[in-house]
Amino acid sequence: MRTMPDPPPTGEDAIIQEFLAPLAAGAPGARSLRDDCASLTPPPGMDLVLKTDPIRAGIHFFADDDPADIAWKALAVNVSDVAAKGATPLVYMLALSFPDYPQRSWLQGFSQGLRTAQEAFGCHLTGGDTDRAPGPVSIAVTIIGAVPHGQMVPRGGAKPGDGLYVTGTIGCAALGLALRSGTVPNGASDVTMNDAEREALIARYLRPQPRLALAGVLRRYASAAMDVSDGLAKDADRLCRASGVAGVLRLADVPLGTVARRRVAADPALLPRLVTAGDDYEILCAVPAANEAAFRAAAMASGVVVSRIGHMQQGTGLTTFGPDGSLIGLGRSGWDHFPPV
Amino acid sequence: MRTMPDPPPTGEDAIIQEFLAPLAAGAPGARSLRDDCASLTPPPGMDLVLKTDPIRAGIHFFADDDPADIAWKALAVNVSDVAAKGATPLVYMLALSFPDYPQRSWLQGFSQGLRTAQEAFGCHLTGGDTDRAPGPVSIAVTIIGAVPHGQMVPRGGAKPGDGLYVTGTIGCAALGLALRSGTVPNGASDVTMNDAEREALIARYLRPQPRLALAGVLRRYASAAMDVSDGLAKDADRLCRASGVAGVLRLADVPLGTVARRRVAADPALLPRLVTAGDDYEILCAVPAANEAAFRAAAMASGVVVSRIGHMQQGTGLTTFGPDGSLIGLGRSGWDHFPPV
Repeated sequence: MRTMPDPPPTGEDAIIQEFLAPLAAGAPGARSLRDDCASLTPPPGMDLVLKTDPIRAGIHFFADDDPADIAWKALAVNVSDVAAKGATPLVYMLALSFPDYPQRSWLQGFSQGLRTAQEAFGCHLTGGDTDRAPGPVSIAVTIIGAVPHGQMVPRGGAKPGDGLYVTGTIGCAALGLALRSGTVPNGASDVTMNDAEREALIARYLRPQPRLALAGVLRRYASAAMDVSDGLAKDADRLCRASGVAGVLRLADVPLGTVARRRVAADPALLPRLVTAGDDYEILCAVPAANEAAFRAAAMASGVVVSRIGHMQQGTGLTTFGPDGSLIGLGRSGWDHFPPV
Repeated sequence: MRTMPDPPPTGEDAIIQEFLAPLAAGAPGARSLRDDCASLTPPPGMDLVLKTDPIRAGIHFFADDDPADIAWKALAVNVSDVAAKGATPLVYMLALSFPDYPQRSWLQGFSQGLRTAQEAFGCHLTGGDTDRAPGPVSIAVTIIGAVPHGQMVPRGGAKPGDGLYVTGTIGCAALGLALRSGTVPNGASDVTMNDAEREALIARYLRPQPRLALAGVLRRYASAAMDVSDGLAKDADRLCRASGVAGVLRLADVPLGTVARRRVAADPALLPRLVTAGDDYEILCAVPAANEAAFRAAAMASGVVVSRIGHMQQGTGLTTFGPDGSLIGLGRSGWDHFPPV
């Protein structure tokens, strides 16, 4: 709780100039956010990769999250998509909507979080819009990345025989969300998790880490890729459908963090929940058999852990095998804003 | 009121494929909206021009407006900015947010309106996002246009001596908004306006007409340009500030529609209100004296009416002269989402 007065700043132009224009200093086409549009001279020989993925309070983040974390997430979820396409981010547009005048301290934290994120991801703010409307705070990033002409890694390029890989670990963000929202017992009696582990899981939810280091490796070796944001099983199914192939997912091979491993050992029913939860922001990709060894070596060299969790075959749909090797159904496969009612 | 059941469609992917993917057919990089990102191969020798201007129910449009009109406006307000920069639109991203499942009939009308608009403006949908969140329906377009390298017309390029021009007419949309919201007497006793005039004014509010035909003329002759969306006086002041010059605005020369002219004749106090209202989506530009004759001729050839409403001079700020030639203050100069409290 603040005890000092924190009068909200006024004037769209003044808010933009004080808090956002400094983030555009590295983008010449942003014109210090003093023009109606930004310009971008495309890098020669490159295609641009475009993505917009807005986040809204109460849906994608908690209204009382640290504004620096909210800013990080707003940019990271978009960078994650760009990375999965084998591209690197260049610039982003930012459309902010507030139900009321934002507090100065909130804007300061938010802009500082954006600065940290854009420096980590190597991109710059180049334009946007700020308005006031009822409803949750809404932060809509549209990102523009670059990839060598014709080399964007598609979702639909997988072929039968390809290995199915995922980066990092799955389910940590879901556990972090549960901790953040208080739905996991969090008291002293919970001996399976120490404070550092708890913090790390919450950080996985609050601060997704886009796997940008893998972008070049994907371009070189992957036949298809996408980021995992709506649940591993759902996104794997999407990759299969887009590619016109069937997929086999082996839950025994899905990489879990240490806490998730302990919890799944105690309660095997948790595993299907972790592979159908969202917010992982890992990369799922298909790799032709002939490339698999080189892919694994290049991924290791890039510092990104990859795990083979299945493969592609002739047919349609995703088949999932449980830890004991038996065929299982997952029920809902992941997040949908408009599920059947 | 519908008497037939209109069950809402379910499934984000299904909604996207049924209603939005057809709008992406002309954009190869959209990959039928089945990938995580779109790609764009930039036209050779061109810079890209970037803009995002979201519209939200209850703020920028009425929730019960025809969805085809809402769609038109969502795209038109962005195209207007692109046109003012001397650019032509290529593709756009669309982030939709609904507080609840949208009705099928609404989505049909909306997508039909988008089709009409994108065909009129010569661009294509290439990607986006659809989610569900409390609050007003939100429609966020991010548009990408193209302009010959280095030729984007800036807001800040005006010089002392330049003529100040505006396209079309000012204040029609403000009158249309007043009619649409019922704040202007609209009964049979209102003899100053017939039905056709009333419809035309409301259409100016609902369906802004971006002045795309002027884009090439602006590139060739204008030193500075921007679109008029937050009020002529406010936007003229912004153009002056960005250019580091003073501006003179002569209200007697501001072009009005026939109804506005009659109403201003009856109530001169209306004129300052019309030049500080928003939603005009005309183009304001500065033209060096040596270019003015050629600019006017080229604008006429392009079919866009332009009016000289003032000029630039040494100094700072915007000075406004009333219809009788006396200096006047306008009070608030235009729309601000975060005005001083």
